[in-house]
Amino acid sequence: MRLRVDWRASAALVGTVVKWLSVPLLVPLAVSLYYGDGGVAAFVVTILVALAVGTAMERVGDIQNIGSREGFLMVAGTWLAVSIVGALPYLVAAHGIPGVAAATAPMSKLANPANALFETMSGFTTTGATVLGEISFDRHSHGILMWRQLTQWLGGMGIVVLAVAILPELSVGGAQLMDAEAPGPGIQKLTPRIAETARALWLAYAGITAVEVLLLFGLNQAGFADNMGLYNAVAHGFTTMATGGFSPEAKSIEAFTGIVQWVIVPFMFAAGTNFALIWQALTGDLDELFGDAEFRFYAGVSGVFTAVIAGLLFAGPTLDVAVGPVAGEAEVSLRHAAFQAVSIVTTTGYASMDFAQWGEPAKYVLFLAIFVGGSAGSTGGAVKMVRWLVIIKSLKRELFTTIHPEAVEPVRLGGRALDESGVRGIYAFTAVYFALFAFGTVFVAIDASRIDETLSAIEVMSAVAATLGNVGPGFGMVGPMGSYEPLTNATKLLMVGLMWVGRLEVIPVLVLFTKSYWQD
Amino acid sequence: MRLRVDWRASAALVGTVVKWLSVPLLVPLAVSLYYGDGGVAAFVVTILVALAVGTAMERVGDIQNIGSREGFLMVAGTWLAVSIVGALPYLVAAHGIPGVAAATAPMSKLANPANALFETMSGFTTTGATVLGEISFDRHSHGILMWRQLTQWLGGMGIVVLAVAILPELSVGGAQLMDAEAPGPGIQKLTPRIAETARALWLAYAGITAVEVLLLFGLNQAGFADNMGLYNAVAHGFTTMATGGFSPEAKSIEAFTGIVQWVIVPFMFAAGTNFALIWQALTGDLDELFGDAEFRFYAGVSGVFTAVIAGLLFAGPTLDVAVGPVAGEAEVSLRHAAFQAVSIVTTTGYASMDFAQWGEPAKYVLFLAIFVGGSAGSTGGAVKMVRWLVIIKSLKRELFTTIHPEAVEPVRLGGRALDESGVRGIYAFTAVYFALFAFGTVFVAIDASRIDETLSAIEVMSAVAATLGNVGPGFGMVGPMGSYEPLTNATKLLMVGLMWVGRLEVIPVLVLFTKSYWQD
Ligand SMILES: [K+]
Ligand SMILES: [K+]
Repeated sequence: MRLRVDWRASAALVGTVVKWLSVPLLVPLAVSLYYGDGGVAAFVVTILVALAVGTAMERVGDIQNIGSREGFLMVAGTWLAVSIVGALPYLVAAHGIPGVAAATAPMSKLANPANALFETMSGFTTTGATVLGEISFDRHSHGILMWRQLTQWLGGMGIVVLAVAILPELSVGGAQLMDAEAPGPGIQKLTPRIAETARALWLAYAGITAVEVLLLFGLNQAGFADNMGLYNAVAHGFTTMATGGFSPEAKSIEAFTGIVQWVIVPFMFAAGTNFALIWQALTGDLDELFGDAEFRFYAGVSGVFTAVIAGLLFAGPTLDVAVGPVAGEAEVSLRHAAFQAVSIVTTTGYASMDFAQWGEPAKYVLFLAIFVGGSAGSTGGAVKMVRWLVIIKSLKRELFTTIHPEAVEPVRLGGRALDESGVRGIYAFTAVYFALFAFGTVFVAIDASRIDETLSAIEVMSAVAATLGNVGPGFGMVGPMGSYEPLTNATKLLMVGLMWVGRLEVIPVLVLFTKSYWQD
Repeated sequence: MRLRVDWRASAALVGTVVKWLSVPLLVPLAVSLYYGDGGVAAFVVTILVALAVGTAMERVGDIQNIGSREGFLMVAGTWLAVSIVGALPYLVAAHGIPGVAAATAPMSKLANPANALFETMSGFTTTGATVLGEISFDRHSHGILMWRQLTQWLGGMGIVVLAVAILPELSVGGAQLMDAEAPGPGIQKLTPRIAETARALWLAYAGITAVEVLLLFGLNQAGFADNMGLYNAVAHGFTTMATGGFSPEAKSIEAFTGIVQWVIVPFMFAAGTNFALIWQALTGDLDELFGDAEFRFYAGVSGVFTAVIAGLLFAGPTLDVAVGPVAGEAEVSLRHAAFQAVSIVTTTGYASMDFAQWGEPAKYVLFLAIFVGGSAGSTGGAVKMVRWLVIIKSLKRELFTTIHPEAVEPVRLGGRALDESGVRGIYAFTAVYFALFAFGTVFVAIDASRIDETLSAIEVMSAVAATLGNVGPGFGMVGPMGSYEPLTNATKLLMVGLMWVGRLEVIPVLVLFTKSYWQD
């Protein structure tokens, strides 16, 4: 049997990424040095491992041989490899190094390797589902919690580069629409070489992160946010722009003042926007942004979810529905509605209050939002705006051609007729996505009978949807103030797979499991 | 504004159907006369109304003007009209006729017109969701309960004719595949004229019903089924072949012996099979049946659901899962698994035990089955086998073309390449189906906060899926021994709409709500 894939070339390129992981690891190392929290050993070990493993892998093959098949393997392998190497700091902190360094977090839930892998994959996929349970600096060092936040920021950067520079090359499951979605002087024309494109978007990504960090820390300095010190400002800057949702605060964004919550909303919204459009807007071309079909749809959908939830939260008691502690206060209802709608629609997963305590109506509406997803070319996950838009348009077309069977009507997006194979790819993606959701739900429901907690249907479904869609929190036990820890290791490993598959647009990972990929 | 639709022609044809409804109404009339149960007035009144209304409607327009647009309106209008006229016996029985006849069921839940319409639409759409609550001859006459069973048998016959003779003409949402699915000397070639086709299928439908009735009554006469008298044999014959699921027994098929349950399984399976294939098999061509791609898939899916559920029911305790009272008994586990799997997959909705009491694992598996549906051209509802098969095949194609972007690969079914617009139609159908499910769920969840019962997510979702898919029972309050009655009138009217839309393959009804249908 002769392989059609040069897996050595893929491994070599994955090795390069693993090697370079040692550079961002200097950040939590510096944090640990600053706070003197004893976490230094964990990062030094991981840096050495990343350098050694990365360099060794680089020698396995020749990256000149990377073609499109090798590209699929490289992308999937990268997220897996960094999640394994990136879990080392958690494991070292929990177990120490026998005879060399003591454990700094001996009681941590991350002592269980399945938990450590879950938390790291949740980080690099910008999911934000956590197994920590009790989040506090008493249990984990400042360095470890900053590494947790940083994995999301790195993952988000990887996703933007992937979506803008790599997936369109592989023309996967409608991903080419991202390209079509930047009309006029597209990003490709703007900066012809992939490396340059990636650099431009990295600049936008890092720049907006810096602006958010400064704003949040500014609020603190101005006396509007006592607990938003520089550490918290940086930590939340990292996880907002990644639509990540991890927070070093156990109560997520509920820990902060209303003004902080309001300030975070537009940054979450930006993180769910196509970065190519943001780049064009930053370079002065606002028309591209506001004229974009997906962006307008995204803004509309976010607005509708906000309005509906605000109405439900505000009107609560008169509807005879328990909607939590906010009913009847306009600003509070609107703030939590806008925050939670944008947070879930963009798949950020922050919580401004424990929405798992909301009444059934608002909860069901928020549950639907778990499937929506940000824009293509953003750091948001789930199904994504452009796919829903194309599905809606193609359904309208279907109704029209049912009455006019002779009509040949293309689906149009931003004035451009879409290729039928692109439309088909979007349907295929969505079908696979919901199939994974359905089978994941059945697996988890059956497996959850082995744990002590009794999970309701909405708890199980939200947990599966929130990991597959890289949203993070669900309802009930896995709610925004809860934890995935009580689930079995089998379920947690399944969810590691769901986060991984969901983050990489599903199809590019699934092809790796076909015979045709390896042989034909 | 000039209408492009001759609604008068449609109304005239609907009138003909309403007029002819008076003939089957003679059946419950005869039953009421035989039992002397006082129900005669209800049927006499309804017969007179059907004749009068039907005749009047026939004069509204000229059925010569029926084109394909008028066909959509006629089909949707027929199910609505017969459900309204067919609700009259329930209302007359509950309220009587002032000064003429006393009410025979004054305490009936059907006194509420929304409930009466729900029960009748549930009958004619072969859904089998009930609002009766307490089913007993103490409360409702033999005539009324036979009419309830008969609405399903009539609805099933209408659906077979619709699927085989009318929808392919309208070429709707992949319905043309039904046609493609009868390969070789297709039913169209066998009996070229639509009227003849319809007659052949009616013969098969009535013939198999008669065989089942004789078998069930034979078991009674042979001493194997004390309570399966002629009345019950006929009643269950009517609702098996329609994949209807109504039963005059409060405990559904749990009321009968194990042998009765086993006998009913193959008849449910036949009812979920394409009737064109059954007709060919009956006329000696078994190869057409066993070689058919959809039939093989249907048999396989039914077998897998049976095996999984049997395993869960049998192994229950060793999995540490409460699975109800059957664990550890092989024949009992297999019987209930086969019965319930086939009942739900075919969308019959009979229950051999209260599956709402099963443990979570088996319940979730059964919940998935609610979406499966019988074969095209059968009386089964939901998404249907051929659509799932095409979706699976097109997903395989998508994975293949992801690696081989240059390949042009059609989706093949039974050796025949499918038209891309047919594949698209199937995706569109499925997308609309699940969108209706999602929005129905949110509506019902919100609306259910106005009733006294607290509904869980799985109760709400199963209720919506079971009405949209014409399955009937769901879980919890709406389980097989339960009732939809406690839901609000608004929810029940929404579900009347879901049953109606779901039964008529969704798209043909939705087009009526587009401007393009009426004007362009
Ligand atoms: K997230
Ligand atoms: K049914």
